[in-house]
Amino acid sequence: MKLMNARGTRDFCPEEKIIRQDVIDLLRRTFELYGFSPLETPIIERFEVLSAKYAGGAEIMKETFQFKDQGKRNLGLRYDLTVPLARYVGMNPTMKMPFKRYAIGRVFRDGPIKTGRYREFWQCDVDIVGSKKMTADAQCLQIAQRFFSDLGLDVVIEVSNRKLLDGIMESCEIPPEKRMAAVLEVDKLKKVGVKEVQKQICSLNINNAAVERLMEILSIDGSNFEKIEKLKELVNTKQADEGIHEMQELLTYLDEKNIVFNLSLARGLSYYTGTVYEVFYKDEKVFGSSLSGGGRWDNMIGEFLGSKKEFPAVGISFGIEPITAVLSMVKKSSVCKQTVTKLYVIPIGTVNESVRLAEELRSSGLKVDVDIMGRGPSKNMDYANKLGILFVLFVGEDELKAKKYKLKDMASGEESMLTVAGIVKKVK
Amino acid sequence: MKLMNARGTRDFCPEEKIIRQDVIDLLRRTFELYGFSPLETPIIERFEVLSAKYAGGAEIMKETFQFKDQGKRNLGLRYDLTVPLARYVGMNPTMKMPFKRYAIGRVFRDGPIKTGRYREFWQCDVDIVGSKKMTADAQCLQIAQRFFSDLGLDVVIEVSNRKLLDGIMESCEIPPEKRMAAVLEVDKLKKVGVKEVQKQICSLNINNAAVERLMEILSIDGSNFEKIEKLKELVNTKQADEGIHEMQELLTYLDEKNIVFNLSLARGLSYYTGTVYEVFYKDEKVFGSSLSGGGRWDNMIGEFLGSKKEFPAVGISFGIEPITAVLSMVKKSSVCKQTVTKLYVIPIGTVNESVRLAEELRSSGLKVDVDIMGRGPSKNMDYANKLGILFVLFVGEDELKAKKYKLKDMASGEESMLTVAGIVKKVK
Repeated sequence: MKLMNARGTRDFCPEEKIIRQDVIDLLRRTFELYGFSPLETPIIERFEVLSAKYAGGAEIMKETFQFKDQGKRNLGLRYDLTVPLARYVGMNPTMKMPFKRYAIGRVFRDGPIKTGRYREFWQCDVDIVGSKKMTADAQCLQIAQRFFSDLGLDVVIEVSNRKLLDGIMESCEIPPEKRMAAVLEVDKLKKVGVKEVQKQICSLNINNAAVERLMEILSIDGSNFEKIEKLKELVNTKQADEGIHEMQELLTYLDEKNIVFNLSLARGLSYYTGTVYEVFYKDEKVFGSSLSGGGRWDNMIGEFLGSKKEFPAVGISFGIEPITAVLSMVKKSSVCKQTVTKLYVIPIGTVNESVRLAEELRSSGLKVDVDIMGRGPSKNMDYANKLGILFVLFVGEDELKAKKYKLKDMASGEESMLTVAGIVKKVK
Repeated sequence: MKLMNARGTRDFCPEEKIIRQDVIDLLRRTFELYGFSPLETPIIERFEVLSAKYAGGAEIMKETFQFKDQGKRNLGLRYDLTVPLARYVGMNPTMKMPFKRYAIGRVFRDGPIKTGRYREFWQCDVDIVGSKKMTADAQCLQIAQRFFSDLGLDVVIEVSNRKLLDGIMESCEIPPEKRMAAVLEVDKLKKVGVKEVQKQICSLNINNAAVERLMEILSIDGSNFEKIEKLKELVNTKQADEGIHEMQELLTYLDEKNIVFNLSLARGLSYYTGTVYEVFYKDEKVFGSSLSGGGRWDNMIGEFLGSKKEFPAVGISFGIEPITAVLSMVKKSSVCKQTVTKLYVIPIGTVNESVRLAEELRSSGLKVDVDIMGRGPSKNMDYANKLGILFVLFVGEDELKAKKYKLKDMASGEESMLTVAGIVKKVK
């Protein structure tokens, strides 16, 4: 047997998992601050659900892991958390609206392996189902603002609106059947530049004047407010008006500190219907991939369910992979810990009493480990040192009698004789 | 398309998931108090690893979900967290011992569906690799004691030792090749009674005198200490002596309050080599399935890796399904919450200011939601009520001017006019 991971999957050793878990915990805390509750759906779904029309689409089906159970039922591994949400909404017709849920879990895609692309990875999604109001969109953006601020990561949140982009296309008289293709080109503007986008859109057989006008509108600059004012002058189709109005209302709910209205942001996926957003590390030269993104998707659930009822929805998704990647790049100073242990107890001929002392310290909330190898003091120090544990405690007969124990700060080397209460205070 | 879950899988609505998450959070906190660090291994493993000799065994292979990736590699879904741990240990030969890890995640078994048995379920495991000492076994039992105590669930922790049971068989002159079968019968003693076990062991073609003597030894009673003293008189093979010695040492490290030495406890799995334990709700008539269990398994990793090096190990596993089931039975009074939200803000013509006020309250750590449907006060009250939110806050023009807002306690109906600080204090 070869000892290997399956292709495209990874182990996360404690050192890495501690960091990932901190990020996930902060996301969860943030989601809950905004009144989102957890929903758990299975990793295994019926293949019929995963492959339904309006679910993930043809591209994603090619990358879906398929198998059968012993009863020969067709099954698959979920490739996102959105299709299971749509199924859940359909199966629970009496749910109270708005339904605000978060889901944090693994998804699977049998695709090509590139840097940063895996076959098993985590998604962290919040979605609101049942509200068409911009106050709902605002919550998703507030979550992003608060999360990255609490994480200590400076980000830029780019926001736009698909109705607006559609309206601009309309006002430039780009034919409806070519707009989706044009949107996908516009989406690349930041990456490839104005000239390349212009060239690509021209190659869609759209007349030059229309493309020129489109590029002119996309190039307007200024503050968010100024861009909106200029757009009001430049475009005036019904769609565009609606988009401008939504954008304007959305901004009134937000602290605009790190929100940038970026007209060319479209987010490839065809299912977005209104507000769209994407979060980047402030210095895109250091880290260019998006850390988080989402938007409004008012039609997908209704279409998926084949329902006449409307299921407006808006959400945001956070990528654990890019977030931990950028953290490790910009916060290099932060110490990587191989263990959660804060204090390591070293018995010196006092195994029994040390085991009990460790229990007492844990009852004060300290994360405490104790020698379970029967090693001598210097080997124990070595172990604590290699794991990066910050404090060790020596427990000998004399210490037990005095009820004071020798605490050593492994970083400074400083030693002090302390009672249990003193140890707890110092280590905490 | 039929809207259904795959057979043997379930959705957990927020109401259920909140409870499950609380249990998992407490487990994690407890594991970390004892210096266990998180390890994440993938859900997809190479089939070769899952089906290796000394991995899960033939029974479990029948229940393993199998599939291929696009590159035709044979893969499977993990059926436990132990085989991945063994693989990880083998792939990381320089790891520091003892290696103490916890893992909390889903596992998959394509088996028959019965009450309480699913095809996708959670396991929560802690294991210590690298220590043969009873202080390691003691940590696993201390974790169980602390976890169930903090959860507020009265449990009995049954403990025994496989060396001891083996030694007893030996001293009764039960032939070695029949001992494993006899152990499996002894394991059922609590369920089926002495007579039935005696009958089944006799049917293994073991002579009556030996079986009589075995049943006599298994029937000794008294305190843990008394049982050990009686055993010292009754059996004296080398194996049994070792088992008695380990048991005696183990007990010295523990607060014996809810620890019961149960000689007939064997835990079916053949890979246990020493201490074994199982946790039950104190009243087994109310809930009879075990909530947690584990033991020492010194040989499996070495055998799995085909290594001459020894990898002694001891661990304990907690079942989210039985733990949440017994919680819902014995703690019926506790309110089920459909949401994590603690406070619901109802704007009365003050959408913008209410959105900002909600943000301010969140900055104090309160889980706050705010109307995003544009509903009137009574419909909003109705929504908050149905979700079980305990407090609502009315925000009108007058309240904004006075900077005092009307907080309503939904349970008592009591209303009070409070500042932001006052609201935070009251709701927290």
